[in-house]
Amino acid sequence: MLLALPLLFVAAPIPPDVSRHLVGGALTDGVAYARLRDLTDTIGPRLSGSPGAEAAVQWALKALQQDGLAARREPVKVPHWVRGEESGEILPSPGIVGHRLALTALGNSVGGNATAEVVEARSLAEVASLGPSAQGKIVFFNHMMQAPEDYGRLVEMRSHGPSAAARLGAVAVLIRSLATASLRSPHTGMTSYDADAGRIPAAAVSTEDADLLHRLLQRGPVRVRLSLGCRMLPDADSANVVADVRGRERPEEVVLISAHLDSWDLATGANDDGAGVAMVMEAGRLIASLPRPPRRTLRVVLFMNEENGLAGGKAYAASHQAELAKHVAALEADGGAARPTAVRLRAGDGGVAMLAPWIAPLETFGLHLENGEAGGADIGPLEPASVPLVRVQTDGTHYFDTHHSAADTLDKIDPEELAKNAAAVAVVAYALAEMPETLPRPPRQAPRDTQPASRPPAH
Amino acid sequence: MLLALPLLFVAAPIPPDVSRHLVGGALTDGVAYARLRDLTDTIGPRLSGSPGAEAAVQWALKALQQDGLAARREPVKVPHWVRGEESGEILPSPGIVGHRLALTALGNSVGGNATAEVVEARSLAEVASLGPSAQGKIVFFNHMMQAPEDYGRLVEMRSHGPSAAARLGAVAVLIRSLATASLRSPHTGMTSYDADAGRIPAAAVSTEDADLLHRLLQRGPVRVRLSLGCRMLPDADSANVVADVRGRERPEEVVLISAHLDSWDLATGANDDGAGVAMVMEAGRLIASLPRPPRRTLRVVLFMNEENGLAGGKAYAASHQAELAKHVAALEADGGAARPTAVRLRAGDGGVAMLAPWIAPLETFGLHLENGEAGGADIGPLEPASVPLVRVQTDGTHYFDTHHSAADTLDKIDPEELAKNAAAVAVVAYALAEMPETLPRPPRQAPRDTQPASRPPAH
Repeated sequence: MLLALPLLFVAAPIPPDVSRHLVGGALTDGVAYARLRDLTDTIGPRLSGSPGAEAAVQWALKALQQDGLAARREPVKVPHWVRGEESGEILPSPGIVGHRLALTALGNSVGGNATAEVVEARSLAEVASLGPSAQGKIVFFNHMMQAPEDYGRLVEMRSHGPSAAARLGAVAVLIRSLATASLRSPHTGMTSYDADAGRIPAAAVSTEDADLLHRLLQRGPVRVRLSLGCRMLPDADSANVVADVRGRERPEEVVLISAHLDSWDLATGANDDGAGVAMVMEAGRLIASLPRPPRRTLRVVLFMNEENGLAGGKAYAASHQAELAKHVAALEADGGAARPTAVRLRAGDGGVAMLAPWIAPLETFGLHLENGEAGGADIGPLEPASVPLVRVQTDGTHYFDTHHSAADTLDKIDPEELAKNAAAVAVVAYALAEMPETLPRPPRQAPRDTQPASRPPAH
Repeated sequence: MLLALPLLFVAAPIPPDVSRHLVGGALTDGVAYARLRDLTDTIGPRLSGSPGAEAAVQWALKALQQDGLAARREPVKVPHWVRGEESGEILPSPGIVGHRLALTALGNSVGGNATAEVVEARSLAEVASLGPSAQGKIVFFNHMMQAPEDYGRLVEMRSHGPSAAARLGAVAVLIRSLATASLRSPHTGMTSYDADAGRIPAAAVSTEDADLLHRLLQRGPVRVRLSLGCRMLPDADSANVVADVRGRERPEEVVLISAHLDSWDLATGANDDGAGVAMVMEAGRLIASLPRPPRRTLRVVLFMNEENGLAGGKAYAASHQAELAKHVAALEADGGAARPTAVRLRAGDGGVAMLAPWIAPLETFGLHLENGEAGGADIGPLEPASVPLVRVQTDGTHYFDTHHSAADTLDKIDPEELAKNAAAVAVVAYALAEMPETLPRPPRQAPRDTQPASRPPAH
């Protein structure tokens, strides 16, 4: 078809020397994995406000500057929550000797002690139906998470369960960990207190302990003692790290690739989101080391406070508001470092056809471009400005095995898959920064049922 | 072959009504799983000397008596070790922010605090070669456990590493958990102090933390702070539970089937060894409920203190010394409740040929009789009396995933496999108690290289 020919010339693919540099560099230099190892081994946990978070900011600035990017810190005030000592037990009662519980406070929970009978609920809807029977009790949210896909549907129990229980006069909340594997491992995550409800202590229990509570409740009343030493300190000074490779022709047009630098405190955050940090830093390094920079500016952003407040994502959108119309695409790598499975785009009509030829260098990895959800928590605040969103999708089968638990550590990362993800991010980012025209911008997204706009998203 | 015919008649197999009762009962009554649930849910951890251990003795006596067995407690003095609070961390140092360690004291360890540099050793042989460089250090035993088969070879590091390190002047020991899976889970287990060495605190670290220590040691010196609140209290009064189904013809001849009632304190000991307890209790219940008892006495023994001293196994052998010549076989179920894979016999020549026809009812489960290692820690003290040993072998693939860790909980048990194991134990036990002749007794076993007779075996 002759009509197709001009299109082929318009959408000139990435020059072979560039794709070899990007993919070959990601797969052979070993830099992404070495950086992830540095970040997790020498810094470790990076919860907002902690010494680790500040060390991570310094580390990233230095590394990005070494790579030749113009890197700076952009200030962000962040919640400063600390965990403290925590413990819980099923108390002895007639016929029951008692059990220690494997639990961990939910992020942003108030601390406190509670000793009370347990009442079980299977959903937010069900807790409301408990009515006065929840008064003075510890509400135990149980559920049937079986697969990664269940997370989005069930996470509302963690986010909003404590407020729902508090409205009924409950004294504390336990929630079954949102997890697809467990060796008695509690998985934390942010909870959000509604302004109109009391604040009660809330903790995740391991799936094994949830099963035990459920079985014991079939026998009769169960009393639990809970002690959470966590507390919220005054907001702390922190920062996003922002680093540019200045575009050679249209420097005011920005392709933003990002990840979040903060992690939960229980582990070193290798998958969540050290891996994403390593990927986008690597894409930045490889693009900065090309003989000729791409047409547009490539911007690497390492957000602070994705896990328990999104202060970094909100601060970026606010302080760069005037430039968002020139943000031509945004990517967040925050799905772990397992095998990349697709590249997803959310843009206006025709976007996929425009971008697809440019990611041909990823075909060997089985990666193709598809329309779909492509957002990320930190780049969510860019959606109202209709910034096209792109994502390298990864195999999520085992993501929730370790997510937000003490087991999110470097040994869970496959260096080869991490390298392939970094290569994919580099190619996609280069394509977006180099293609002659910018992508059509998507329509503004309607608020989702499961995540009302009035509530902060849960991660 | 005509010669085989008389043998077929001599070795008359189990009558069909008996095998239906035993196998059908185990697979349909649901009693073994219900008992295991009771034991783990209402009693929980059962470390020697603890309230749980005493509750388990009472519980087992009552259940066995309800089943119609003549059950009694036989007194045993047991070590009484308690864990207390425990923590450890990799200390901050130039370039390292610091890490909390996932660790747990080894059973029988002394408590104490240590803050010192870490030195790594890969084996007992290697630690000896450290010489003066271990003085004042924390010795970190690392190893390459990959598969269940590695346990027997590597466990000497846990058992004897602390004394080996103490001889060099080390102040504490960390050992990589002996485990085939980990979600940051430390696995405990007994350590033994040699009389000629100082007693220093010893803890297991998770495999993830072991990997981290190893990587950090490549960078430079690593200092660790360790605090173990464990201590050994005076020996406690406890008991083995011994329950008989009296033989109808030769009651003085005893077929002993056993498991251990104690567990580690970190979990409810579902696999180790609640499952074995449930299996042998179920075999006892099913045989006791036959219209006609077998020819010989079936004895169910639930040993105390397998995990950290073997006091129960030793006490039984000592107090029953005079009867051991009439112990015609002994079985210990202590390998978890995964799929049964074989029946193993250690007897004199011709034993397998004698017993094999009797276990034909297990052929549907793929179980056949084979010569091989068939001992157990608690029945080890019966070996000098040349008691034939028999074992229902189970699939050990995942046994060390949770072994001695907080994750050894009921949810890891498949009720169907537990039932099949109970059926197998029941058939084997009935066969041994009913077959016309007793098995030829095995020769006394030579002490094994890896487990010198002068040292207690490690579990």
